[in-house]
Amino acid sequence: MSTRSLDALFSPRSVAVVGASSTPGRIGAIPVTLLRTLGYGGPIYPVNPKADRIQELRAFPSLRSIGEPVDMAVFAVPESAVDAALDDAIAAGVKAAVVFTAGFAEVGAAGEAAQRRMTAKARAGGLRLIGPNCLGVMNLRTGLYATFSPAPGIGLARAGDIGLVSQSGAFGAYAYSLARERGVGLSVWASTGNEADVQLGDVIEWMADDPHTRVIMAYIEGSRDGERLRRALAAAHAARKPVVVVKVGRTALGAQAARSHTASLAGDDAVYDTLFRQYGVYRARDVEEFFNVAHGAAVAGLPRNDRVSLFTLSGGVGAFMADEASAIGLDVAELPPPEQRQILDLVPFAAPRNPVDITGQVSSDRSLIDRATRICLGSAADYGSWVGFMAAAGAGDGFWPVLEALVPGLRRDHPDTLLVVSTLLTPQRRDWLAEHGCLHFAEPADAVRTVGALARIGLAFRRAVPPPLSLLPPPTVSVPPGALDEPASLAMLAAHGVPAVAVRVVRSAAEAVEATAGGGAFAVKVVSPDILHKTDVGGVRLGVAGGAEAGAAFEAVTAAARRADPAARIGGALVAPMVTGGVECILGVRNDPVFGPVVMFGLGGAFVEVLRDVSFRVAPLERADAERMVREVRAFPLLDGARGWPRCDLAAVVDALLALSRLALAARDTLESIDVNPFVVFAPGAGPGGASALALDAVVIGRAPA
Amino acid sequence: MSTRSLDALFSPRSVAVVGASSTPGRIGAIPVTLLRTLGYGGPIYPVNPKADRIQELRAFPSLRSIGEPVDMAVFAVPESAVDAALDDAIAAGVKAAVVFTAGFAEVGAAGEAAQRRMTAKARAGGLRLIGPNCLGVMNLRTGLYATFSPAPGIGLARAGDIGLVSQSGAFGAYAYSLARERGVGLSVWASTGNEADVQLGDVIEWMADDPHTRVIMAYIEGSRDGERLRRALAAAHAARKPVVVVKVGRTALGAQAARSHTASLAGDDAVYDTLFRQYGVYRARDVEEFFNVAHGAAVAGLPRNDRVSLFTLSGGVGAFMADEASAIGLDVAELPPPEQRQILDLVPFAAPRNPVDITGQVSSDRSLIDRATRICLGSAADYGSWVGFMAAAGAGDGFWPVLEALVPGLRRDHPDTLLVVSTLLTPQRRDWLAEHGCLHFAEPADAVRTVGALARIGLAFRRAVPPPLSLLPPPTVSVPPGALDEPASLAMLAAHGVPAVAVRVVRSAAEAVEATAGGGAFAVKVVSPDILHKTDVGGVRLGVAGGAEAGAAFEAVTAAARRADPAARIGGALVAPMVTGGVECILGVRNDPVFGPVVMFGLGGAFVEVLRDVSFRVAPLERADAERMVREVRAFPLLDGARGWPRCDLAAVVDALLALSRLALAARDTLESIDVNPFVVFAPGAGPGGASALALDAVVIGRAPA
Repeated sequence: MSTRSLDALFSPRSVAVVGASSTPGRIGAIPVTLLRTLGYGGPIYPVNPKADRIQELRAFPSLRSIGEPVDMAVFAVPESAVDAALDDAIAAGVKAAVVFTAGFAEVGAAGEAAQRRMTAKARAGGLRLIGPNCLGVMNLRTGLYATFSPAPGIGLARAGDIGLVSQSGAFGAYAYSLARERGVGLSVWASTGNEADVQLGDVIEWMADDPHTRVIMAYIEGSRDGERLRRALAAAHAARKPVVVVKVGRTALGAQAARSHTASLAGDDAVYDTLFRQYGVYRARDVEEFFNVAHGAAVAGLPRNDRVSLFTLSGGVGAFMADEASAIGLDVAELPPPEQRQILDLVPFAAPRNPVDITGQVSSDRSLIDRATRICLGSAADYGSWVGFMAAAGAGDGFWPVLEALVPGLRRDHPDTLLVVSTLLTPQRRDWLAEHGCLHFAEPADAVRTVGALARIGLAFRRAVPPPLSLLPPPTVSVPPGALDEPASLAMLAAHGVPAVAVRVVRSAAEAVEATAGGGAFAVKVVSPDILHKTDVGGVRLGVAGGAEAGAAFEAVTAAARRADPAARIGGALVAPMVTGGVECILGVRNDPVFGPVVMFGLGGAFVEVLRDVSFRVAPLERADAERMVREVRAFPLLDGARGWPRCDLAAVVDALLALSRLALAARDTLESIDVNPFVVFAPGAGPGGASALALDAVVIGRAPA
Repeated sequence: MSTRSLDALFSPRSVAVVGASSTPGRIGAIPVTLLRTLGYGGPIYPVNPKADRIQELRAFPSLRSIGEPVDMAVFAVPESAVDAALDDAIAAGVKAAVVFTAGFAEVGAAGEAAQRRMTAKARAGGLRLIGPNCLGVMNLRTGLYATFSPAPGIGLARAGDIGLVSQSGAFGAYAYSLARERGVGLSVWASTGNEADVQLGDVIEWMADDPHTRVIMAYIEGSRDGERLRRALAAAHAARKPVVVVKVGRTALGAQAARSHTASLAGDDAVYDTLFRQYGVYRARDVEEFFNVAHGAAVAGLPRNDRVSLFTLSGGVGAFMADEASAIGLDVAELPPPEQRQILDLVPFAAPRNPVDITGQVSSDRSLIDRATRICLGSAADYGSWVGFMAAAGAGDGFWPVLEALVPGLRRDHPDTLLVVSTLLTPQRRDWLAEHGCLHFAEPADAVRTVGALARIGLAFRRAVPPPLSLLPPPTVSVPPGALDEPASLAMLAAHGVPAVAVRVVRSAAEAVEATAGGGAFAVKVVSPDILHKTDVGGVRLGVAGGAEAGAAFEAVTAAARRADPAARIGGALVAPMVTGGVECILGVRNDPVFGPVVMFGLGGAFVEVLRDVSFRVAPLERADAERMVREVRAFPLLDGARGWPRCDLAAVVDALLALSRLALAARDTLESIDVNPFVVFAPGAGPGGASALALDAVVIGRAPA
């Protein structure tokens, strides 16, 4: 279904309110009042069979009886009346319904069934439905307040460029109120409630296409349909519209709290986090940052690079900003020497590198701010952003004219530079700066963090995003349900481009003797799809010599496995050459029920198991993604020659991750997971037989049939 | 010198301004204007030989000519006039001087020498001096504005309980302005400038003793005198006054920026961080948190435990708060089942565990907030804090009466519970809540974080702090300058209670043969104080059999060492039994130039060297400190039986850390560092000879003479 079908939700030419009321404060009264008094331009049709007039408007007994086209109907009726209202709406040709009514999936199985029936009926009737159990929608440009939130009644947020969608009605209403208090301009606002039909992803996708929305804010608890969310985020990325989210559930307790209050499947938070990073979605750590970043993007756009010029009147705050910038990875590039000399010509005891501290000297010569800033921004350092700390200057009347002259001049002469001022300001002056495309923060740390967030989004916009799975070729590999045994797993990996140690399966001690006749040292392991922890049950012998010792090892590992699990299927034993040296890694894939295959990388042993030092990417991976995921684990230096170890062949790891991504997508309908542990990496060509890397053990698990 | 000597600085009975001026905006005019107009009650004496009257006050040609006692003199004169003014002040019996004048240590060697002369003269004359290059001091209770900051002129912060001291004048002035904007009450304010005499630590110590100061805020760049700062923090801890700091220099870039703008030795940020944690000092991550925590402590005190009841009208925000609380380590204890049932009796579809989500149902029955909150706070869960998210309720007039009734009632019935509300509020209502001992935050994450910070301070107040070094017995151990060789280092450790492997030093191959005659496997290592990396030069042989092989190993390691460094002093070789198994740790001590011995702990190998997974404590350690530092490294599970490893004898590690702390303090005047690497830990008694832990290698380094 095209997102155009949501036009009737956000830009209806007429609105009916089913269950309209004249009693102030009633759920059926609030939207009528808001629509009437806040500037909605289209016809408003109260529907209530018991009244002729509602709030001075003519009322109708049903939607059908209106006799005029109704784009959108708001359902403010009890749960028992929703079904009839929906029939009425479909018969009247209504295109979109906003269902406030609670008592559906959020209250249990019966409600869930009712919700499913309602959704099916709406789909069959060609009607888009938002809710149930939602607070509705707003379009601040057209005065559409199809909501029973009291927030707009207390005061209106200004119309602007930011679309806001929330899976929590109360959070959304709170965010609306904060937007009003902070002077943040909104285009449209939506609360998606139980998401029977319209989901968060649909709204984001619509906003990505909406010419009046330039930045998207979303509060997320979870998504049932990961593909829809991926498509939406890809659309926002393609449209170069920053998406800023608050996502709950980053801790076990938060995830539990989120689950307990919605019927939605919350999904694995780490996968969301990965997805956000891959699509350039900025995950705010709190509501403050949610607004700082979204409003910053709307007011000032994104910086063209991550180099920042820090400018201060106070060395202390300069150091404070430098700490923050450095910690979040901004490039605080030094001012080139010629410009440093120019700064010192202005103020001999200035700090001229970056931060540039022009010192309190500015109180005797206010022109220093403009002159020093222009020296910085004109330098070859090519700063994409400038953050100026102006102390309490903005609060007094003496200093404000300096800023009032500075900002438009810089804007004109450096139109591609992100300008941010940290000072105390009145709301009026703050708004004036915003109108001139300059950000403002009282908190210097927020000034720096916002630059960092916007730079990160800008960087993501210069990278590709993974395509939605629905655009990929259909699966070509079928994995049988349950675990493949080790030889089969290694063979599947090898067949799809992941280098694996050559193993031979033997069915008897005699075969083991024969297989190892050439001599050397061998690993002998029982083969059984039913025994996942072979070492724990005595099913593995390492460093076995060829010949008779290999035969004895065969008997030992198979006997041990039988003792441990008499019912286990035992397919003999595998014999593999011992591999020593190299750095042990763990590669893996989990086929996430919401977002599809997720590829995992970490260093072996304690790094993954104790320190959880792993990186993830949703598939498909590009080479640059795989390179980044290898480098972003904390233990990466151990692959790269730290502590006198060899520099491992990173390309071999990257190739293996790309091969895993391809295999996982080719098998995506039938795959549950792949674990490659250990995957041993050597210096280029320094492994056995000239290999750079080898999977020594692996388990591929097929998905149980639904 | 007693901190009482700072009374003249913060509570002078009279103030003279040397260099007083009548020209508005001049550095000598501002303090006269502020003192005259903002309520200072004592005599004000302008000193200026060129005027009879300054700003309607009688002016004097010198301090001596005043003829009345002068407690404090403000120096607003050029650098060239400071020396004469100081002579004049001493002659006039002035007790304290505030020196605004710049041009001293911050401008180079000549200024530094002038500053030293000034300090010596002030000390000899019995005069305390703050500055030079400082913005001065304020006492908001007495109207003392001995500053040339324009901030108080723009508007006054209210008088209150929080003392604020800053090593950066501009930061301090900005913080003053923020206090005014946020309605935060200050007792005294000080900018310490170059700290020629009065240092940040002195001001903190004075505040710890000041009956009008209950909470201390400090902006810190570095301390030259760590002992003074330790003494001050110990005094604040003893007085149960929370200390909240912003400390710059947590990144290399920030530290460099801080150094470039002051003459102070910044010191090692990790040591400050450790010190703060040991003394219960809360290090705020930004200016916002700096105020949130300090104001929170002043308004509401500290919670009695770290258990928090989260209460919400929105499941989404409940999950959001739960995430934050869980991430910062608050105990979000579940509501006991009987009270959960009571919540469900109120609202059947509420979430009753914790967070308690009473849902939007509250809009039809506002009494639910009070009833549900009392159920939570009356429960056996014994919540020390309560955080209630009230959405935008505080912004409208309809809902405010609910809060207005709720808070005083809860305050009365649960006087020991920290109450925090997150909602939108007008500044008037925010202040009303503060007067009723209830904290308020628009940002729900800040509400939770502030509870976490206050709980952390409260916990630290229930623990002991390390005593200042000056209260410890004098040193009893003398370490010779330079590195001790391995046998000497191990012997010193063993003699002071750190278990070490028994080694024998041999001077010839024959001695090596004889020393290993009993058989077994040995390590043979060259002995030389000049070769720190013995393995790298071939100076180590491991797994050597006794007898002839040991003799050959002796020849090999000594020859290799001679080849590597023909000038190295070689003291033969050491022979030690091979030790296998156990978990390798690294223990260490660094004698920090500012704060004295700092003890370090980490797990061996990559954990310390690549992941920097280490913990620190300044000495002396108590057993509980040592236990915490062992548990706080991320790799701790590897010592504690993770992945099937043995559970190591943690007490043996703790004992060794305590022994190192004692040794370091006993040697503190002559010690540079101790490295014990590896220190191998076993299951209790499972090491060689029944040992639980053994140092296998160590280097003790004596401090080079100054």
